[in-house]
Parts: sequence; structure tokens; C-alpha cells
Amino acid sequence: MHALVERLYPLCRSITGDGVRATLEIVGEHLELDVHEVPTGTQVLDWTIPKEWNIRDAYIKDRAGNRVVDFQRSNLHVVGYSVPVSATMTLAELRPHLHTLPAQPGLVPYRTSYYAETWGFCLSQDTLDGMDEGPYEVVIDSTLADGHLTYAEHVVPGRTDDEVLISCHVCHPSLANDNLAGIAVATALAGRLKEPRFTYRFLFAPGTIGAITWLARNRERTGRVRHGLTLACAGDAGALTYKRSRRGDAPIDRAMALVLRDRPHTVVDFSPYGYDERQFCSPGFNLPVGSLTRTPYAGYPEYHTSGDDVGFVSPRAMADTLEALWAAVEVLEHDGRYENLSPYGEPQLGRRGLYGSLGGRSDTKQAQMAMLWVLNLSDGEHSLMDVTGRSGLPFRAVAEAAAALEGAGLLKRVGEGA
Amino acid sequence: MHALVERLYPLCRSITGDGVRATLEIVGEHLELDVHEVPTGTQVLDWTIPKEWNIRDAYIKDRAGNRVVDFQRSNLHVVGYSVPVSATMTLAELRPHLHTLPAQPGLVPYRTSYYAETWGFCLSQDTLDGMDEGPYEVVIDSTLADGHLTYAEHVVPGRTDDEVLISCHVCHPSLANDNLAGIAVATALAGRLKEPRFTYRFLFAPGTIGAITWLARNRERTGRVRHGLTLACAGDAGALTYKRSRRGDAPIDRAMALVLRDRPHTVVDFSPYGYDERQFCSPGFNLPVGSLTRTPYAGYPEYHTSGDDVGFVSPRAMADTLEALWAAVEVLEHDGRYENLSPYGEPQLGRRGLYGSLGGRSDTKQAQMAMLWVLNLSDGEHSLMDVTGRSGLPFRAVAEAAAALEGAGLLKRVGEGA
Amino acid sequence: MHALVERLYPLCRSITGDGVRATLEIVGEHLELDVHEVPTGTQVLDWTIPKEWNIRDAYIKDRAGNRVVDFQRSNLHVVGYSVPVSATMTLAELRPHLHTLPAQPGLVPYRTSYYAETWGFCLSQDTLDGMDEGPYEVVIDSTLADGHLTYAEHVVPGRTDDEVLISCHVCHPSLANDNLAGIAVATALAGRLKEPRFTYRFLFAPGTIGAITWLARNRERTGRVRHGLTLACAGDAGALTYKRSRRGDAPIDRAMALVLRDRPHTVVDFSPYGYDERQFCSPGFNLPVGSLTRTPYAGYPEYHTSGDDVGFVSPRAMADTLEALWAAVEVLEHDGRYENLSPYGEPQLGRRGLYGSLGGRSDTKQAQMAMLWVLNLSDGEHSLMDVTGRSGLPFRAVAEAAAALEGAGLLKRVGEGA
Repeated sequence: MHALVERLYPLCRSITGDGVRATLEIVGEHLELDVHEVPTGTQVLDWTIPKEWNIRDAYIKDRAGNRVVDFQRSNLHVVGYSVPVSATMTLAELRPHLHTLPAQPGLVPYRTSYYAETWGFCLSQDTLDGMDEGPYEVVIDSTLADGHLTYAEHVVPGRTDDEVLISCHVCHPSLANDNLAGIAVATALAGRLKEPRFTYRFLFAPGTIGAITWLARNRERTGRVRHGLTLACAGDAGALTYKRSRRGDAPIDRAMALVLRDRPHTVVDFSPYGYDERQFCSPGFNLPVGSLTRTPYAGYPEYHTSGDDVGFVSPRAMADTLEALWAAVEVLEHDGRYENLSPYGEPQLGRRGLYGSLGGRSDTKQAQMAMLWVLNLSDGEHSLMDVTGRSGLPFRAVAEAAAALEGAGLLKRVGEGA
Repeated sequence: MHALVERLYPLCRSITGDGVRATLEIVGEHLELDVHEVPTGTQVLDWTIPKEWNIRDAYIKDRAGNRVVDFQRSNLHVVGYSVPVSATMTLAELRPHLHTLPAQPGLVPYRTSYYAETWGFCLSQDTLDGMDEGPYEVVIDSTLADGHLTYAEHVVPGRTDDEVLISCHVCHPSLANDNLAGIAVATALAGRLKEPRFTYRFLFAPGTIGAITWLARNRERTGRVRHGLTLACAGDAGALTYKRSRRGDAPIDRAMALVLRDRPHTVVDFSPYGYDERQFCSPGFNLPVGSLTRTPYAGYPEYHTSGDDVGFVSPRAMADTLEALWAAVEVLEHDGRYENLSPYGEPQLGRRGLYGSLGGRSDTKQAQMAMLWVLNLSDGEHSLMDVTGRSGLPFRAVAEAAAALEGAGLLKRVGEGA
Repeated sequence: MHALVERLYPLCRSITGDGVRATLEIVGEHLELDVHEVPTGTQVLDWTIPKEWNIRDAYIKDRAGNRVVDFQRSNLHVVGYSVPVSATMTLAELRPHLHTLPAQPGLVPYRTSYYAETWGFCLSQDTLDGMDEGPYEVVIDSTLADGHLTYAEHVVPGRTDDEVLISCHVCHPSLANDNLAGIAVATALAGRLKEPRFTYRFLFAPGTIGAITWLARNRERTGRVRHGLTLACAGDAGALTYKRSRRGDAPIDRAMALVLRDRPHTVVDFSPYGYDERQFCSPGFNLPVGSLTRTPYAGYPEYHTSGDDVGFVSPRAMADTLEALWAAVEVLEHDGRYENLSPYGEPQLGRRGLYGSLGGRSDTKQAQMAMLWVLNLSDGEHSLMDVTGRSGLPFRAVAEAAAALEGAGLLKRVGEGA
């Protein structure tokens, strides 16, 4: 996963343009992608697809001809969606177009201006402090013109049409944790899924306008989304953070709580700020989509700065995020409600070979406890997630107990998925 | 407000009599009052209006002719509703009629006997300790005769007939915090209200029997009481205390919780002891009436003693109580449920001038957060109080966001008050 | 109670056999018992009554003829339900049949093998360590043959057919806390009940198979079980532990919470492991049966070892368990819902002699507070348990207030039991 992050890192992504296309091409080497191009001016929900932005070069050159600020060194140096500029101006004239982080003087901020036509440069405060009054040659060699918005889907077909939606934004330029790590983990998860119960839809789309575009073009399909996650900031050193869906008690919310129960983690309530869960959880859709990150949105000093580079994300952290995701998939795949077919008293597990025969010992095996819990709560009302929550046992032990009891004819699956 | 407390302090109030009338006359200089006189013997719910009590003088004079205990120095010295007495008696004979606070030897207690005809004096333990065996001249120049119970109402008419009831008891003699401070704060609040949405009814009535009398005479009207508060102990140095209505989750309970969220405070559950919330929250009425105090009922050593004097209450504390009340009024006035008219995805706030245009920054303004929260939760089910509770934002920011969004055609008020 | 424990201690009980019969005979000296004998092979729910096991003697004799392990010294030395053996074997041959507790080298474990025919000895690790290679004379003089399972009931008839079920297991041999203390406390409680409201059924039955047998033979009757408790580990030095019924909020769960509120205690949620609550709370029956112990199932080092002897249980602890049980009985007997017949405002308690007449005092008596609480919450929805929970007052004070108010015509019992 880290190699993929390194490869994607230099590309200059935005909400439209060739950087997104190049990114999807590289992801497409790992997954079969269905790439969509939506023309500028298309109405999507309350929004309109903007012009497509592309950039070849940009710099601020001093009188000696040195590039003081240079897009070739980092694409963060240009405000996203900057209109073309070619001018000579003094520092005083340039100043309103320069963005720095005075409190983090060594870092370059990340700024965009998608919907107000302007231009600007981002640079470190240290660089700015070293600049004299100029004049400077100021060039942004960009185009802002009719074109397309690009996004992609990868679908792993399941035994049912009910879908799990995994979404990650692909619009940030050279920022590794936000969101190349998310793209890499989603790609790895997609590669792991084999003949699942649910259909898994992976969405690689620019933030906000991309999610809105997908929602506008898939309004019918949203009714099939049974569970969903936005995936971002998946590779930093912090603990996992799960942000609940707007519903707060959707199965994905409960599944993630069980998965994170035995790991260092934070769970926070939904708020309408952050990543594309904002769109999926808008009240008209109200999809059961939560958000999985490590350190959450805007929660670390390197967030949206040049400090979020490839060294900021680690293979170990991404692997940990992937394992948690995989555990969540296991819960979603195997959860279900059962009915105990021998509900009056405990059935005699011993004569069915499901129980140790020597009594009197005060310890008992996890597998036996899991069977007792599943039998006790399988009244058609409780799911395996409920059993897991009340018993404190691992979900896997509970699911295995249910399978063993079903095999012994003591349990029958009921309700959805039966 | 403190000047009003000082002016009311010397009057000898009780549940009936001229002290109450004089008190209402002074409050009437600030507010237009509707004063009611209810004759002795009138049946009010399970109770009967008692005889009217008035007192001119009372003392215990020693052999040298000195007033050892003197009603003229403090009206607390006489047990409220004492029948007339004129006798000479030894200390031993007098003793059963004397009330002191041995644990607070310098303070005079406050005692009454409304419904059992008796007489008595209250004095400090120090005074009692200095008294010899007598004999003493004992005089209480009072009358207990058919008359009236007096209470008053002040109404600020609103745009609806739905009422907010603010009640404070006016039966306590020279006790400043309990309840001259409450009277003063209620009076100030009434003066501040200008063309409110709700009709505000201020009730100045003697405790228990006064509230019962009002309820008996306004049974129909109680159905209009949408929110209510009893106001007492409004001027001491302690933090604000809100006692929930019997319902526990009435809008007034939620409004007060939001108002107090960012102030030092205590919230306690309803109990059937305290002030007139006891009557308003009796199960037959079960009105949504909570109780606002600073240090609660019986919660400070000076409670119901001569220590609760004008120095015990401060202008600053009363102003703080008033501001909290005002904040609660703002919540009640502006709360409501809305429907997001663009509920699929977020509407594009930027092109409506409601959103900053420069992206990428990790901070965002409170006003923008408030708009996102209001849009997200405005599904017709959630009120602005809900939004305030879930977002952690100030109610005012939430209400202003709702107004801005309504102005932009993105929001429509629904349900009651629409 | 301790004398009963001492008398029952030496008997070799199991899930069937003469040890159970002898135990019930001794209990029968205190209570009139209805003893049931159910033949081997009878189908009971998912189970079958096993063969009856009886034992006369067992030992491991060394070459010198000394009984190294001797059933006559402690019946724990033989694995319960051991088939007969008479053989000479080396220690190596004997080893698979020996059970010790290496971590508690001085204690003899308790082991059984009811449903797999085998044999074995339990001994201390210390004893095992002192044994040479043998050979040994190994004798178990037992019989495992068609017979009966024995259990007993004692019923205290109430004014209604609704039942309270108190169950304790009688299958453990020389283990005092588990469960001779439970048997003794149940016996004492039964002796105390005089003309109760509910019918109390005490069940003395072997664990698991006994409860299953009773349930199989009383399926109809289970519908009458309104409240129930399994009683075990009732005499150790630990604090009381209540384990909720599967329902979690059954009246017995609430009653026990109120009873334990002012005592050192632990309350734990239901789990399908422990004593016969497992069977009563199986999903088909789902009876409102909790479990009362001191230190819970498997919660002390002496559990299921020779350390659980008569010295391990104390008269004081058993008396404390009995008092808690008795308090729970009082709650169940006297709980009910009432309707305030004067619900508009407070009724004037003073003229009915139910209230102190001198006002102004900041303290008030528990009895008066209890009356105010009962009046306030008696809307037909709240029970006396609710009043007790919300007021923090003792249940007895609340019940007495209800009785006084009912006597004064202010309250009427409603709903069940009215």
C-alpha cells in the first residue's frame, strides 16, 4: 500500500483534470475500474459541474531568475483552480495572493478556490520572510475551461444486490494521509474480497462535488446501500477513529463499535462536517454511512500542509486500518438473526459433541460460552452483533458458534439473509 | 433590582394581609398588576382560604421595661399567623412559645403556623441565653379574622395565546433571597419583554395556598401553559440550579439545560418538595413548570433565618439570574422545527453568499457550522434545541443560521408556530 | 442455619441417588416437602433422566495397605458418577484418572462426569506428589443403574395463584457454600412466610437436570411464575451479588436493585452461565428469575474445592443473605400502583393529621416526604418501586405512606392486586 501512496503522491489532483485521471489509471492497474466523465455544466443535485482545471507550470521568479516558489517542487504551491497569470509585480502587489501558515513557518499550506475565480500561491512563512520587495515574475500556466469531472467505481458483485459503499476522495494533490492512504487501503480491501454476501461498491471520486455527482446519477441505487464508510486519513500514527452515521445506530455503527472494542480507538457522533459522509448523510438520503479514519479530519498539525507527505504515513498504520476494515466486513457478512430450535431449557450439547463432558471445572472454553450465548439470545430478535455486544466475546467466536449450532440442527437463520 | 429588594425587605408579609398588599403596590410601580382578592372561606381545590392575618406590634418586655424581643426590630420575631396575646408570664411559661436555632446561636429563625391556631416568638439562642426567669410582659397585637387572600398577575401579551408562566412567592417576611430577589428578577424580566411570541404570565402569590388559589381559579387556562418556571432564591452567591419539571423532558427542561450548559450550574430532577412547582406539577395538572434558583431550597445556612438579609443578595447575582432567564426566553421564543428544502446533498451555500469561498482551511466559522447543522437536521423532526444540543453550538448561532437559510429559501418552518 | 449446613455437609450428594434423598429428608424436618421421583430414561425437554448413581466406598490403597486417597474422609475424592472399579495399577496407569489443582496444591478439586461413563479420583497435588510408582489397589464401590432422579418442592400458599419461585441446587456433595448455605437460607425463608400475597414455591433439585425436569413437568405452571430467584453461595464473607434475569428489567430485577441499594453489593447482567437461572431464562421460558449469591459462581478460590467447607460459611453471612431476601419479599408483597384521588394540587395533609403544622423549618420528616412522593407519582402509571427509586427513600417508608394515604381516602390501589 505504501508503494501506491508513493507513486500517487507527485500527481497534481484537483476536483477535475488530468491529475485525477492519472490517479485512476494507476489504481486501475490494481482494480478493474469503471471511469465516468461528466461534462462541465451538468446539473447535479443543487450543484453544477464546474470547468475543468489543468496546470502545467507555475512559479514566482526573483530578479535573479531563481524560482522562489516553484510548482515543480510541490503542487501545493499553487492555489487549486487558480486562473492563468503572467505578470511582473512587487511583493506588495503579490501579497494578497500569497498564503502561509505563520504558526507553522516551515510548512506550505493547501488551499483551493473552486467556485470563485482567483489565483494564488501557497508558501512557507520562512520563504515569505526571505523575500525582498521584488519585483517578481509571476506565472501560472493553467487552463480553466469546459471539460469533465472524472470519477471511478469498482464493484465486487455479491450474492445479493444489497450494497456496501466504500468511498474515498481523490481530489487532494500531494497530501499522503489525506487521502492517498485512504485510496490505498480501499484498493487493498477491494482486492481481498472474494464472493461476498453483499455487493461492494468502491467509489473513487473528488470530494463534495464528486459524491454529489454520484448521488445525483445514482438516486435509485442509494436505496440499495445497506452499509457504507468513507475512508480517509488511513495511514497516520494515531488510533482509529470512527464517526457514526447520521442515524447513529445503523448496523455499520454497531459493527464498527464491536470491531474497535478491543483496539485503541475513538468513536464520535455524526457531525455535518468532514468528508463525504456529509453528502451521503444529508437528510434527503440519510444513508447508513459512517467515516473511518485514524486521526480524524483536521486533527493533526500536518493536516492540509506539506507536512502530510509520504513519510507521514506508515505501512504499519495502513495495514492496521485494513485489518479493522476487514473485521468490519466479516461482521457485516456474517451477522444475522437466528432462532433457537430447542428453546425450552438448554439443549444437551454434550450428546451432540458440542460440549466438554467433565463437569465441575470453573473455567469454560470461549467456544462453549459462545454457544450458550447464541442459544440464549436466538429468539429471532437478537442478531449475532447483539450477542457479541452482550457477551463481550469476539464476533468471530460468536459466528463460529452459530455455524456449529446450525450444523447440529439446533439453530435456524431467520429474517433477512435467511 | 437590589433597590427593590431593599424597599420590600421591611414589610411583614404572610400568606394574607396588608404586607402582601403593600408589596404588590410597590411591584405595581414597575408593572401593571391585576390584583385579586379572594375571601376567607373560599374553597380552592382541596383547601380553604384561611382567615386574614395582620399584625401591628409584638414584644417580650422584661421587668425593666426593655423589649428583649421586638417585632419592630424584625418581623421574623413573631411566628407567622400568631393569635393575639397579652399576658405576663415567667420564662418557664413562655418557653414552649419560643423558637431558636441552637446550632446558629446568633440567628433568628423564621416560623409560621398558618393552619393551627397558636402563637410564638422567634429569637436568637444568644438572646434566650441572656434571659432571666422573668416575669415578662408578652404582647402580640395581631388580628386573625375573615378577610382576603391577595395575589397579583402581570401579563405580557404575545402573538399566541400559549403561555409562559413565571411564578414567585410573595409570602415571606424579611427574607431577602427567599424571595425578594425572585420578585425583583421576575419584575425586571417582565419589563424587558417586547411583543413576544408567547404570552407571558407573571404570578406574584403567596406560597402553596396562593398557587393553589390561582390553579383553582384558572383550571381552564392551565391548558395553555406551554412552559413555566418558579423563581426563588435568585440573588445569593451560589451557582444557578435548575430543577426539572415532573415531566423531566419538557421543552423548558431542555431549554434550561442548554442555557446552563456553558455556565456553572446544577440540574436536579423533580421532587415534590420545594416551591410552588409542587402544585403546578401535581399529577392532575402536571404542568411543564421547572424551578430556577441559585442555591436551592434549604441549601444554605442562612435559609429561613435572619441571616437571609439584604446583604446576603447581590446585584451581580440577580443580574446573572436575569441573564440566564433571558437566554431561556430567547430559546423558547425562537425554537422551532424546520424542513430543509434542498435535502439531497448539501445545497451549494457558496453561490448564495452563505459560505466562505477559499477551501482547504481546517478551521471554519461558527456561522458556517451552524448552517451545516441546521441543514442536516432539518428533516421536520428536529427542533433548533435539538440542533443546539447535538452541535454544541450556542442556540443564538443556530437560530441565526436558521433565519439566514430561511431567507435564502433553503428552509421552511414546519409544525407549530410555522 | 449453620447447624443445618453442618448436618448436611458429610452426605454424598449427586444429581441422583440416596445422598439427595437423605438431604431432602433432613430439610423435610423443617419444611413439609413434596418429594418427586422421576425414573431413569424419562424424556425431559431435550434431556433424558440418567441412571441413578450410588456409592458406598472408594479408595486408593498403597502396598502397605494405607488408604492414600479415601472416600470415607471426603466424598470429593471420587469423581461424581464414577463407574465401579476394582484393580491394581501403577501410578502411571492411574494418572489419567487423577485430578488435582496444581495451583492450589493443598486442596482437593470437585469433578463429575454425569454423561460420559468413566471413573476418577480427586486429590490434592500434595498427596499426588507424595505417591510412589505403586502398584496401588484401586477400588470404587459404586453402582450406576436404572433408578430415579429425586427433587422436592415446598409451597407456601398465597392469596393469589401467582407464584414466586425460589430454587436451589442440591446436587453438590461436601461443598458448604455451594450450595448447603443456599439450601439453609431457602429453608429459613420458607419458615418465615405467613399468609403471603403471592404463592411461594421452593424448589430443591439437582442442578441443570433437576431444573430441566421441573420445567418439563410444570410447563403450564411456568406461566404463573411472576418472580423468581436461584439461591446459591449464600454464606461466604463476600458482599451480595445479584445477577439480573434475562429480561433485565423484570420486577424482581428492580426489587433486588432497591433492596441492595443501601448495602455493599454488585449487580451484574444476565449471562447464560452459572446456576439454574440458565434453564429458567432459556428463551422458550424466559422467566423473570434472577440469581442471588454472595461471591458469585466461580468467584472465589475455594470454589469447587475442599476449601469450601463448613468453616468457609458463617452464620452472619447467611443471616445477611436471609435479610436481603426478606426485604425483597417485602417489596414484591407490597408493591403496587395507586391513583391519587386528589390529584389537583397537593391535598391539605395537615387537616387530616398527616403533616406537621409548624411551617418554615427546612427539615422535614421522611414520612412526610414519602407521602408527598407517593401523592405526586400516584397517577396510575408509577408503582411504589418507581416511587422508591425516584425518591431515594426506603421502600418501607414509601409503602407505609401509601397505606396511610389509602387510609385517609386520598389514594386508591389500581391495576393488578387492586
